[in-house]
Amino acid sequence: MRTTSVKAYGTPAAEAPLNMLDIRRRTTTPHDVEIDILYCGVCHSDLHTARNEWHFTVYPCVPGHEIVGRIVRVGDHVTKFKVGDVVGVGCLVDSCRECQYCREGLEQFCEPGPTQTYNSPDKYLDTPTFGGYSESVVVDENYVLRIPENLDLAATAPLLCAGITTYSPLRHWNIGPGKKVGIVGIGGLGHMGIKIAKAMGAHVVAFTTSASKFAEAQRLGADEVVLSKDEEQMAAYRGKLHFILDAVSAEHDINAYLNLLRVDGSLALVGAPEHPLPVAAFSVIMGRKSFSGSMIGGIAETQEMLDFCGAHNITADIEMINIQQINEAYERLLKGDVKYRFVIDMNSLKNAS
Amino acid sequence: MRTTSVKAYGTPAAEAPLNMLDIRRRTTTPHDVEIDILYCGVCHSDLHTARNEWHFTVYPCVPGHEIVGRIVRVGDHVTKFKVGDVVGVGCLVDSCRECQYCREGLEQFCEPGPTQTYNSPDKYLDTPTFGGYSESVVVDENYVLRIPENLDLAATAPLLCAGITTYSPLRHWNIGPGKKVGIVGIGGLGHMGIKIAKAMGAHVVAFTTSASKFAEAQRLGADEVVLSKDEEQMAAYRGKLHFILDAVSAEHDINAYLNLLRVDGSLALVGAPEHPLPVAAFSVIMGRKSFSGSMIGGIAETQEMLDFCGAHNITADIEMINIQQINEAYERLLKGDVKYRFVIDMNSLKNAS
Repeated sequence: MRTTSVKAYGTPAAEAPLNMLDIRRRTTTPHDVEIDILYCGVCHSDLHTARNEWHFTVYPCVPGHEIVGRIVRVGDHVTKFKVGDVVGVGCLVDSCRECQYCREGLEQFCEPGPTQTYNSPDKYLDTPTFGGYSESVVVDENYVLRIPENLDLAATAPLLCAGITTYSPLRHWNIGPGKKVGIVGIGGLGHMGIKIAKAMGAHVVAFTTSASKFAEAQRLGADEVVLSKDEEQMAAYRGKLHFILDAVSAEHDINAYLNLLRVDGSLALVGAPEHPLPVAAFSVIMGRKSFSGSMIGGIAETQEMLDFCGAHNITADIEMINIQQINEAYERLLKGDVKYRFVIDMNSLKNAS
Repeated sequence: MRTTSVKAYGTPAAEAPLNMLDIRRRTTTPHDVEIDILYCGVCHSDLHTARNEWHFTVYPCVPGHEIVGRIVRVGDHVTKFKVGDVVGVGCLVDSCRECQYCREGLEQFCEPGPTQTYNSPDKYLDTPTFGGYSESVVVDENYVLRIPENLDLAATAPLLCAGITTYSPLRHWNIGPGKKVGIVGIGGLGHMGIKIAKAMGAHVVAFTTSASKFAEAQRLGADEVVLSKDEEQMAAYRGKLHFILDAVSAEHDINAYLNLLRVDGSLALVGAPEHPLPVAAFSVIMGRKSFSGSMIGGIAETQEMLDFCGAHNITADIEMINIQQINEAYERLLKGDVKYRFVIDMNSLKNAS
């Protein structure tokens, strides 16, 4: 298969910092588009994968699955896009397309496993897939998203992962007017959760461990803010919430939040704490409650989310960086020192030598 | 309020065995029926409560919430029943009737708390409510159930708790033809779960820790039986089940079962293990799964369950005992030495002196 060499930022080993390297991209096949990458968001999964914290990284590793760019080439059979279109690529670049879940638009749960944007076996090349910390990417048009024209492109990049990760469960659990929704954790995911739940018409209650985030949560759209370590404040919400979106990746007391749900309420975890979370039987038995999880969304739903964000003028709050700052950005990410998502200006890579 | 003295079996303290004692029952108010108790099932909750294992027992304690009897007196305004009717009483004898959950027929989740058949504050008397280990009980007609004529009365008693506890989640999670349902644990609850899920038209997969229970599970209606400690057998069901009813009260590995669910599948706990169950984030995030719980059912749903069991000729498998054997029965219950529910022949109390 014909390939071209492309500049990227990645790492050859778990312990090594990210640095410039060359990767190969296939030339467009008939259904592919080639995308010149303009911006790429920095997701915590990028860091987990680069450092092999989930123990399945194949090196070299080029992270990045919050990609916004412009189409510079289209394959002969491409019908959905044309050169010049501004598009997005999220966590998935392919899937089997045949299993029950792919047919239902749940490509994220593809039975043989979807092809993720990075660190998946590449269907064409003898390497893992390489993500968006690179000049360009070649993707089948069926896994490419349209970006609404009115949105700031850099601030749109995080929608491709953080946006869909919060939008999908809010949609799945039918959030809308008349629903009281808790959002736990005000970070990369949580800040999107507040914005999207509010735009869906819900009454949003944000939970934070830090009183210093109250004003921020309100600015983002929260109707109420609760200091989660204050038992009295928590008790006031007992049995009051229809749904809780839990975006916390650190250890935390799930039962304290399950107690806040109404009968038949669900708490959906979108963060991924390292250790199992102890759930008391009575926390779910009393009130027929559910401790649930959710993971990104399918391709059609990701487009729906982008269109929704376009209609409601929603983007992420970002801090722009150059690719040369990525290792420093990872360190700040570990400390929660970002409001609320780093986005890489990929011009910084194109201009690097 | 006028009361009458009634013979019962109960205990004055957590450490004391159950013994004969006299209790007071109110005389029927206009909406009450008085029921001569024929049979009372023995639920594990009876034992937990008698021994104060949940730390909220008020003594004296008279357990029993799987009651079948015959109406011997009706209040002036009773319209649903007449003297001579064979009826049942389950876990609830009253509720606030005004909260959102009562209005929705979810009396088990009554916001101020339902009046449970035993060990709840009695609405009329200055004692806790006393359960079915007694000669008779007086209950508001709205909390009394009709027993289908074709069912064996003794074997019907356990439907009032074990039956509704398994029927309600199977209904709530829409079990029926085309669904593969796992039933974990083949005991008082689990054996009802197998029978009811099968009658609903599901494909039933029973899970047991003991190969000796295979034939039993099949006799009860299981289409397949899996030895849960055999990793190879478990792996064959990975991602295959729509729903799991988990009737195990002992510690067990919830993640091993969550792995068997299909995308969007739920595991509903109806047993109540003492210690919190560790649930891994990836167990619920991958496949948008839910770890849920369920607790008995509302009054209308309990009637629906009894009618369903009548239509499908379903009762519990029971071992009949006299009330004088109750302490011994509790010891056997602790060892799981019963197939599958003890039922007390209440004649043994009436004839005792």
